[in-house]
Amino acid sequence: MTIATPDPPTGTGADAAIAPPAGAGTPKPSPRDRLLDAAAALFYREGVSTGIDALCKAAGVSKRSMYQLFAGKDEMLAAALDRQGPGLAAWLLPPAGRPAAPRARILHVFERLEEAALAPDYRGCPYLATQVELKNPGHPASLVAARAKQSLTDFFRAEAERGGAADPDLLARQLTLVYDGASARAGIKADTLEGLAVTTAAALIETAGIEA
Amino acid sequence: MTIATPDPPTGTGADAAIAPPAGAGTPKPSPRDRLLDAAAALFYREGVSTGIDALCKAAGVSKRSMYQLFAGKDEMLAAALDRQGPGLAAWLLPPAGRPAAPRARILHVFERLEEAALAPDYRGCPYLATQVELKNPGHPASLVAARAKQSLTDFFRAEAERGGAADPDLLARQLTLVYDGASARAGIKADTLEGLAVTTAAALIETAGIEA
Repeated sequence: MTIATPDPPTGTGADAAIAPPAGAGTPKPSPRDRLLDAAAALFYREGVSTGIDALCKAAGVSKRSMYQLFAGKDEMLAAALDRQGPGLAAWLLPPAGRPAAPRARILHVFERLEEAALAPDYRGCPYLATQVELKNPGHPASLVAARAKQSLTDFFRAEAERGGAADPDLLARQLTLVYDGASARAGIKADTLEGLAVTTAAALIETAGIEA
Repeated sequence: MTIATPDPPTGTGADAAIAPPAGAGTPKPSPRDRLLDAAAALFYREGVSTGIDALCKAAGVSKRSMYQLFAGKDEMLAAALDRQGPGLAAWLLPPAGRPAAPRARILHVFERLEEAALAPDYRGCPYLATQVELKNPGHPASLVAARAKQSLTDFFRAEAERGGAADPDLLARQLTLVYDGASARAGIKADTLEGLAVTTAAALIETAGIEA
């Protein structure tokens, strides 16, 4: 059983990306997978100060077994974030060539973000939250988060360049800023993002000179 | 003595706003003030999971005295954030009429933000960080933070309206999003904000139809 799958309506919501659902009929997850599912869910919901005891209890794994698998909580946190990467990227980024236009490909990301923000248990981007909470850019989990977010910036930059943006680096930084600002504000329930994230990204894309 | 004043170069940096320096010759701060200074500094630097013992030790106040002044950590956290409000607003917002033009008044905020982000110990907006860490919009400190940030949105909205923005509500939401995204990314050391925060705000202001 996974822990962090509170019914994403379409099966492609943020929570599905946080802990890919173990379909019925699949083999029982290993203690390692159970720990990483529990870590992803609890760190996301309750923060990085969640203790080892709570993680082991949620995973149904003894502390002794946990310490045979991981050096400690820091390593488990980094591994749990890292394991979410492919699912989150597949959910967030458009498939190759669909849509084809750079502007539409970039806006796809912000459409996804607006969708995710509708979920009552949405707490923002798990990478950003982890980095804000750890307050330590050198922590193994901060490094995983920074790498994952950099790959989003790289996606924006490649599309910006392909679309003929006046300054692809600047547009990529701006779009990443909008992504993090939007996810943070939705995560703290300060804004719904409705009509906001896509509109803001579109304005910056237009200013950069990419055609619709 | 205050705790959180690591030499803002001009005396108007973010840290000065976090814990206004007690000038030489002022009376010794009360236990309450010492606790609130310590809380502001430690929660900002190390996060909301900082314990009561560490706070009391940093403030040089006994736990017994602390409990005579505050119901507990939650109340202390809310009071510490609330106390920073006027200093932070005075630092961030332009004085009345200087500059006069709505565009310049809005950009003043983002110029301040770019300045603050230069400090090595900048950890982003203390309100946003607290909200991200608490993961509970109903917590007393989240309510203080939300109110403070709303006053920034209100400032943006008033200037947007005065400047004839096509949709003042949208522009105010966009600018708050940029503020939070920029401060978060600088706080986690993912971006320096150099040439970013002001440029992004300016692009959105222009899209909204406010003239330079």
